[in-house]
Amino acid sequence: MDSANIDTVRPAPEAVQTTAKPDVKALVSLCDPDMVDINALITERMQSEVAVIPALAAHLIAAGGKRLRPLLCVAAARLCGTGNTHHYNLSAAVEFIHTATLLHDDVVDSSQLRRGKVAAHLIWGAPSSVLVGDFLFARAFELMVETGSLRALDILSKASAVITQGEVLQLMKAFDLNLSQADYIEIISSKTAALFAAASESGAVASGASEEKIQALYDYGMNLGLAFQIQDDILDYQGSAADLGKNAGDDFAEGKATLPLILAMQATPAEAAFWDRVIGRREQADGDFQRAQGLMVSSGALDAARSVARTYADKARASLEIFEAGPWRSALENLAVYSVERQT
Amino acid sequence: MDSANIDTVRPAPEAVQTTAKPDVKALVSLCDPDMVDINALITERMQSEVAVIPALAAHLIAAGGKRLRPLLCVAAARLCGTGNTHHYNLSAAVEFIHTATLLHDDVVDSSQLRRGKVAAHLIWGAPSSVLVGDFLFARAFELMVETGSLRALDILSKASAVITQGEVLQLMKAFDLNLSQADYIEIISSKTAALFAAASESGAVASGASEEKIQALYDYGMNLGLAFQIQDDILDYQGSAADLGKNAGDDFAEGKATLPLILAMQATPAEAAFWDRVIGRREQADGDFQRAQGLMVSSGALDAARSVARTYADKARASLEIFEAGPWRSALENLAVYSVERQT
Repeated sequence: MDSANIDTVRPAPEAVQTTAKPDVKALVSLCDPDMVDINALITERMQSEVAVIPALAAHLIAAGGKRLRPLLCVAAARLCGTGNTHHYNLSAAVEFIHTATLLHDDVVDSSQLRRGKVAAHLIWGAPSSVLVGDFLFARAFELMVETGSLRALDILSKASAVITQGEVLQLMKAFDLNLSQADYIEIISSKTAALFAAASESGAVASGASEEKIQALYDYGMNLGLAFQIQDDILDYQGSAADLGKNAGDDFAEGKATLPLILAMQATPAEAAFWDRVIGRREQADGDFQRAQGLMVSSGALDAARSVARTYADKARASLEIFEAGPWRSALENLAVYSVERQT
Repeated sequence: MDSANIDTVRPAPEAVQTTAKPDVKALVSLCDPDMVDINALITERMQSEVAVIPALAAHLIAAGGKRLRPLLCVAAARLCGTGNTHHYNLSAAVEFIHTATLLHDDVVDSSQLRRGKVAAHLIWGAPSSVLVGDFLFARAFELMVETGSLRALDILSKASAVITQGEVLQLMKAFDLNLSQADYIEIISSKTAALFAAASESGAVASGASEEKIQALYDYGMNLGLAFQIQDDILDYQGSAADLGKNAGDDFAEGKATLPLILAMQATPAEAAFWDRVIGRREQADGDFQRAQGLMVSSGALDAARSVARTYADKARASLEIFEAGPWRSALENLAVYSVERQT
């Protein structure tokens, strides 16, 4: 789905709200009562008598981020009309798993910035970042165990294994001139979309929803995650550090197998020598990122990537059709549009 | 309990066997039928289509090690007369958690050797070691979920969080002249003994044992783990790389807060200037480790540490008294003696 389609579709009353404002405000507002408790739980469970652990964890967690994964878990549970609060624990667990992967990713990638702040490993050292990531991962499982839901545990432990496989695959494919779009989709479905899918699926499971609804929310999370990651990868060639809260150009410097790069390399054979040098031979000089950004636009690679992202956002929206119209469904539809239209 | 006590105690018939051969052969032999299945499960579950993952994991797992934690889990389940095979999954899970911590520890400590082989991060890089550790940790939870035992999941997720706290605390206390024996016991009970305790406790839980037996096996594992780690720390000042399969002297180089170091610093005030330089100011030169080794012996620090270790081994043995005499109990009693008498 692209913007033109959004404008020409005749909207149902609540869908006007959905498509008119592609942001997460409606979702955040609906989730707010639950998120107050979830944020308190997050703060409570990252405590440890070993002082560096909460300090390091708070550096990242208090820096905010969008809390998208807990929001997804809450929205899934509420959309399914949950009568319990198991999604509190699962939301906190999902955020801990996500934070653990961020801490480890920043060590793995030697990243300088995260959420607009100096990366934790540059303050506390890589060893502490690795260990605090492990701590948060363990705490995530403690939180899940407390819900008593073996199925939620199954979903999130499997997703955790898939995430790491995606990250290793990404590492292996760095600086690979022959990377394919299929490889890329496999990587991002593992490293990003699997946790989005697990967050919404486990929220549905916790609510006691039907298998049809659980499947729909898995599909929603998976497609949303794909759309979200593609837009992230587009922004890395488009934005500035100030916008993103991390370094634009990081993916280029790391030779990361992202869709914009794959499409640009395919689209500009005349520039083969450039890509061969900066990606194939890893020889990057000042100005190369700017040239890459220029080629991304002139070749149409960014537009093409955006079109792929919109296809996934569209699928995410479509998977919600089995639910009755209402504020929760609207907010999730809106989130799907936001995932590809956002500029930060 | 020290060697003298072992010799003077009038032994019950099966206790002769227990104390006469402080090795793990009897335990290994008893566990062998179960370990065939458990090793197959370990190999099966470390597979991934991302080839570097099984390659890196196999480098460490196939290098062997004593498989003490799975052995403990099996022995606990069998001692309690288990009628199921849940301890297979739990044993594999415990070995994966242990392997994950080794991979991360070696990155954290920049270790060169592990189990007599070049450390994985020196072959595949620290990023892969971090991520494969995460993968194994996630797989451990998948294995546990399959048992359907929320209590075992609770035990092992809590232990996992405790382990990381112990490791962070150890990191914080490195090169600290004022480290106390209480700090040290807190560190090793977290980073080592917690997983020994969780392995034997979860084995008992999986067998459906009584609360009294579960508690006894928790106590056994905890005290065994303390004895085992103290002996490890003694060997680091005593052995050579060839004996240990890792670098003797690593703990000294890292200023690690171990019992031999604490006792030696307390026992040799005349050598305060030496300890202040090598630990307080982290200025270590060639020959300093040999001098430290000499002081460890002449001050009686190693003997004193050994005596502390034997106290814990003694407690471990005592906790088994509620079980009827038999080969499983004997093998575990023997393991307790072995934990402090071993030289590798």
